[in-house]
Amino acid sequence: MLPQKRIRDYGVIIGQLETGPLNKITDVAGVTVGHVTLSDNKVQTGVTAILPHPDTIFENKLIASSQVINGFGKTMGTIQLKELGTLETPILLTNTLSIGVAADTLIDYMLERNPEIGKTTGTVNPVIGECNDMFLNDIRAKSVKPEHVRQALENASSEFEEGTVGAGTGMLCYSLKGGIGSASRIMNMSHGTYTMGVLVLSNFGILSDLLIKGKAVGQELKAAREDSYKEEDKGSIMIIVATDLPVSERQLNRIIKRSVTGLSRTGSIITHGSGEIIIGFSTATKIPHYKPEKLMAVPQVHEEDLDIAFRAIGEATEEAVLNSLVTAEAVVGRDGNHRPAFKDLIQKYGISLTP
Amino acid sequence: MLPQKRIRDYGVIIGQLETGPLNKITDVAGVTVGHVTLSDNKVQTGVTAILPHPDTIFENKLIASSQVINGFGKTMGTIQLKELGTLETPILLTNTLSIGVAADTLIDYMLERNPEIGKTTGTVNPVIGECNDMFLNDIRAKSVKPEHVRQALENASSEFEEGTVGAGTGMLCYSLKGGIGSASRIMNMSHGTYTMGVLVLSNFGILSDLLIKGKAVGQELKAAREDSYKEEDKGSIMIIVATDLPVSERQLNRIIKRSVTGLSRTGSIITHGSGEIIIGFSTATKIPHYKPEKLMAVPQVHEEDLDIAFRAIGEATEEAVLNSLVTAEAVVGRDGNHRPAFKDLIQKYGISLTP
Amino acid sequence: MLPQKRIRDYGVIIGQLETGPLNKITDVAGVTVGHVTLSDNKVQTGVTAILPHPDTIFENKLIASSQVINGFGKTMGTIQLKELGTLETPILLTNTLSIGVAADTLIDYMLERNPEIGKTTGTVNPVIGECNDMFLNDIRAKSVKPEHVRQALENASSEFEEGTVGAGTGMLCYSLKGGIGSASRIMNMSHGTYTMGVLVLSNFGILSDLLIKGKAVGQELKAAREDSYKEEDKGSIMIIVATDLPVSERQLNRIIKRSVTGLSRTGSIITHGSGEIIIGFSTATKIPHYKPEKLMAVPQVHEEDLDIAFRAIGEATEEAVLNSLVTAEAVVGRDGNHRPAFKDLIQKYGISLTP
Amino acid sequence: MLPQKRIRDYGVIIGQLETGPLNKITDVAGVTVGHVTLSDNKVQTGVTAILPHPDTIFENKLIASSQVINGFGKTMGTIQLKELGTLETPILLTNTLSIGVAADTLIDYMLERNPEIGKTTGTVNPVIGECNDMFLNDIRAKSVKPEHVRQALENASSEFEEGTVGAGTGMLCYSLKGGIGSASRIMNMSHGTYTMGVLVLSNFGILSDLLIKGKAVGQELKAAREDSYKEEDKGSIMIIVATDLPVSERQLNRIIKRSVTGLSRTGSIITHGSGEIIIGFSTATKIPHYKPEKLMAVPQVHEEDLDIAFRAIGEATEEAVLNSLVTAEAVVGRDGNHRPAFKDLIQKYGISLTP
Repeated sequence: MLPQKRIRDYGVIIGQLETGPLNKITDVAGVTVGHVTLSDNKVQTGVTAILPHPDTIFENKLIASSQVINGFGKTMGTIQLKELGTLETPILLTNTLSIGVAADTLIDYMLERNPEIGKTTGTVNPVIGECNDMFLNDIRAKSVKPEHVRQALENASSEFEEGTVGAGTGMLCYSLKGGIGSASRIMNMSHGTYTMGVLVLSNFGILSDLLIKGKAVGQELKAAREDSYKEEDKGSIMIIVATDLPVSERQLNRIIKRSVTGLSRTGSIITHGSGEIIIGFSTATKIPHYKPEKLMAVPQVHEEDLDIAFRAIGEATEEAVLNSLVTAEAVVGRDGNHRPAFKDLIQKYGISLTP
Repeated sequence: MLPQKRIRDYGVIIGQLETGPLNKITDVAGVTVGHVTLSDNKVQTGVTAILPHPDTIFENKLIASSQVINGFGKTMGTIQLKELGTLETPILLTNTLSIGVAADTLIDYMLERNPEIGKTTGTVNPVIGECNDMFLNDIRAKSVKPEHVRQALENASSEFEEGTVGAGTGMLCYSLKGGIGSASRIMNMSHGTYTMGVLVLSNFGILSDLLIKGKAVGQELKAAREDSYKEEDKGSIMIIVATDLPVSERQLNRIIKRSVTGLSRTGSIITHGSGEIIIGFSTATKIPHYKPEKLMAVPQVHEEDLDIAFRAIGEATEEAVLNSLVTAEAVVGRDGNHRPAFKDLIQKYGISLTP
Repeated sequence: MLPQKRIRDYGVIIGQLETGPLNKITDVAGVTVGHVTLSDNKVQTGVTAILPHPDTIFENKLIASSQVINGFGKTMGTIQLKELGTLETPILLTNTLSIGVAADTLIDYMLERNPEIGKTTGTVNPVIGECNDMFLNDIRAKSVKPEHVRQALENASSEFEEGTVGAGTGMLCYSLKGGIGSASRIMNMSHGTYTMGVLVLSNFGILSDLLIKGKAVGQELKAAREDSYKEEDKGSIMIIVATDLPVSERQLNRIIKRSVTGLSRTGSIITHGSGEIIIGFSTATKIPHYKPEKLMAVPQVHEEDLDIAFRAIGEATEEAVLNSLVTAEAVVGRDGNHRPAFKDLIQKYGISLTP
Repeated sequence: MLPQKRIRDYGVIIGQLETGPLNKITDVAGVTVGHVTLSDNKVQTGVTAILPHPDTIFENKLIASSQVINGFGKTMGTIQLKELGTLETPILLTNTLSIGVAADTLIDYMLERNPEIGKTTGTVNPVIGECNDMFLNDIRAKSVKPEHVRQALENASSEFEEGTVGAGTGMLCYSLKGGIGSASRIMNMSHGTYTMGVLVLSNFGILSDLLIKGKAVGQELKAAREDSYKEEDKGSIMIIVATDLPVSERQLNRIIKRSVTGLSRTGSIITHGSGEIIIGFSTATKIPHYKPEKLMAVPQVHEEDLDIAFRAIGEATEEAVLNSLVTAEAVVGRDGNHRPAFKDLIQKYGISLTP
């Protein structure tokens, strides 16, 4: 894995808060991310797995929340996540027609690790997000197989690539190549120091809307480009949020809803065409699967502590989207459809990202 | 206050769980209820106040939740209650056109007790529920005045009347007189014994739908009655839930949603015409208005503990509705409109409530 | 398919409204239902498919809505259904660990019928509901295969069995065998006559809570039974609602939410343990996949017309649950677990269903 | 009323779409806005009324929707608005402690115009929004009286002022004076030309977050300012949306939710402290109060038509917020608290709003 040039390496510093050491979702202790990339001619797709912590998550659930920005999507697992306020599996991201395979394989993965599921205790709630990569990927071929889903889960590490990898392989962003991006922020509070991490699967936007820290880079680039292309936005993004901040599921929902501020500042108008969905979890508390005899005591910040978390999520989301864009490589996919890399275009046309 | 004959006094035992000592919402320690009754010819209305605990509630907020069964109502204060998960004022019930007066007076009441509101700290969120008593009450006369609202708050006690009192003065239930009803249930768990209390303001239903513990008493009564009346349901009920069970706002919401099971078992089809709204709070935890330096630790039951709470809320709601019906007195109100008392009719026609 | 003895055949008439000719969901013109039943020793499961109309549903979507009563379930497809207010695939019901296979096969089924999906137009949103049949079925064996899903879709007809069939093969109801049940109601309005149809997959309840038209038949039966069994409720039901009433998705949501009144009247307290989810659609309007040049004009009833629909849904749900119970056959499944048939028990112990 | 210098007059053009002739919410035919301004020493508050159309709105309701961005607010009337999907009164904006008075007066206003309310038909649902102006206004004095509410309703006109007027008199925006702002956009579709209008009551943000078309004007200004001030965000905004686009309430909700994109692009991180709530209505269809004999036919755009509306709402919201800021006048209020005018500061410090 080569070091990738990220948006900060272009001199663009988003927001005011410090980043974590990796400036990725994996700055939240215990979180790991794994990719499988399928890139071969008309197959341009993959799977990305986010593992919330190294323990058996089914027995040690995490407080979680989800939020629909635009519901034209097929994300699975959010009904239970909302009802019970907990996450009990890794989260998978893949292309929209592979959610069935992803769900089925994640169920198998959980059954193997938890022999009591379906025997002596109930079932398991797989959480799967998706975007539609049909422009570059022959999505009807359904190239994602169970072994790919498993590999993504097994590949999980605190180090992971961004851009044209995993579920991001065939995705677009602002009419260019998009995909996986990540960022993090540090939150200092009176009772401790916490981390907010974001991972996005970007697949939305038209070039002329792209803003980089307020600069209308998309319009500059559009004016400079000689090639013609169709500007059409199908508007999809998955946003995964991890934090070690001790929050209730209500508080976590308040936080993750604010990721839309960062998304908007990159220029999105949240078009009709596809799903924009946020799934977040906090690693601060493990909710046991089996009922304890005694009451639980759930650590929780006061509402007045949340403003820094609201700032952190906006900044990290904005930066994660930009990272997904600047790290992506050009791809030629099905039917000769292609999308250039942002980094190649700004070099070619001499576009500066700073004022 | 004379002892009132309640549904249990007719030999009708709803459900399996034990009741609290009063079999009222005030079995939850600290909860008090006060009424003001305005009953004079065409004025048939009033105010009922529910005070969640004796301390200054603004500074010691309670975890709270609300749920809309049918939103054709004007209940105020639920947006903030949902966002922050807390209640910071008493709850008032009154007629639908008096919500402005009730809100305004409750604001004054809170300003007096909390001189810092609007000076050094923010505002306050008054919570007001309502039903429409226009059949018996000249609602356009807007007879509820600020002094009435204050009296209801000041009258609050653990002992309170049911039926044709307070906000229930002009309300109907199953085409007869309805109004205020209450009930409670005891919940034994491994970590303690808790109470679930319900207070309803009933104003819904047509006689032919009325069921008492499954018995089609409404149809028997309809067949027996010699007088004619119009069966029309405007379907409104306010349900106030108190408990000392330590729950998160999400768990509390799961609980209060189940009050619909008890409501349905009295025969309601939840008609279009008016609002059916639930507001619940838990006295188990006080959430401080001012941010503490340290993290909070919120006591909470495990989800697997909730089934008994789900049973309790259904039973208590069913019994509270029946109590509102059997305790109500006949009323003649505006334009000579009148509604008979259930207790008078079953005596007159010799209807038995038990099989 | 032999005629099955249904709740009306026992002299139990639920509610006031007339039923449709079949008294099933398929009384709504165009709706068909297909089952695949897998019943062999420890395999006790299956698939049920509901086809909303005979045309290509992807191109002729239906106004639809869903409602979560208890979200401890894995139902798929409701995010998009809520955002866009439309249904674009058949609805599948199966066991909880087979949702991945069901989704994947339904995607294939749709791709075959709509070659433009993923090529020239976007993706497709499969809608899958589930309950957990692990008591009788070896759910970890994941016996539902793609061919079974396809057979259920192909078997669809306006005539279909109830009870221990399809997705209902391994389900329980009030501690006895449950499964598939259905009912319908006729709604006469000033502008036409309409039908409300309900199909349930019942898998909830403990015997002592069972009410049949208010009669505590469950307690009678519990007292009579000589065998011991464990009363434990995992509380799951899928409720599918079809109507030809012209409604907006908001109005449809108001209607389907009221199915809980009927459910409650059979005795449910809606326990914690599993998912209770409603999915409804109206066949009155076809929403085209492709944008027309002109505005659409969506026929819609006035809100004041809805009360009869609220009554209809409650009655049909109550009757559908009872039909699922009285038509079910006894099953012995995995690890020798067994559940008796209600119809056998009431015969054995001479229990009458009428007062 | 003198012409006010608006953001476009500074050379700042937000977005791509054309504005309506007034570039205000009143570009939507029939919509009028009225203010009452109370500005005298420690009294710095007022009322703003938005009248959706000139007919009797109770009898001719409009399809409407609301959306909570941050629910730390006291907005009234949204429960019914959501349940029935209609607006039946004017919308009032005022300070947070005056909602009771505003509601009570709006009820009176409606009773006078609709003698059937509470007599022969049901009640009325007043819709009131608020922000907290306590920094400049002695909010505990509750200076808004019924006559002020009435004057605001009577003052309504298609011409109206922005900035330090009406409900905006005491409000702040990005640590400076804020208040009322408005903007509009034209939407060309295959079936007609439509208008999207937005009016905001701005009361949020800290100076260092302010962006004007991406330019960090707030940070420039903060660096330049010699006076000290406390940066604290209580984060409140009311956003009123009017359109003549024929939409269902679901579609309208999809539109108004997107106003957050424009809000975010001015720099908001949506802090914890107060309410951010959107209320929208469409004038395209009048829903009759009284049930017609026949079905209604509701004109509606196809979902694929919505992208331009999503763009329009974002642009209009962004511009409305900036208009509220640049038109506001400096105010000295209670306890000598003061907020400077943005327009004065940029002149004083020679800050340019364009790159």
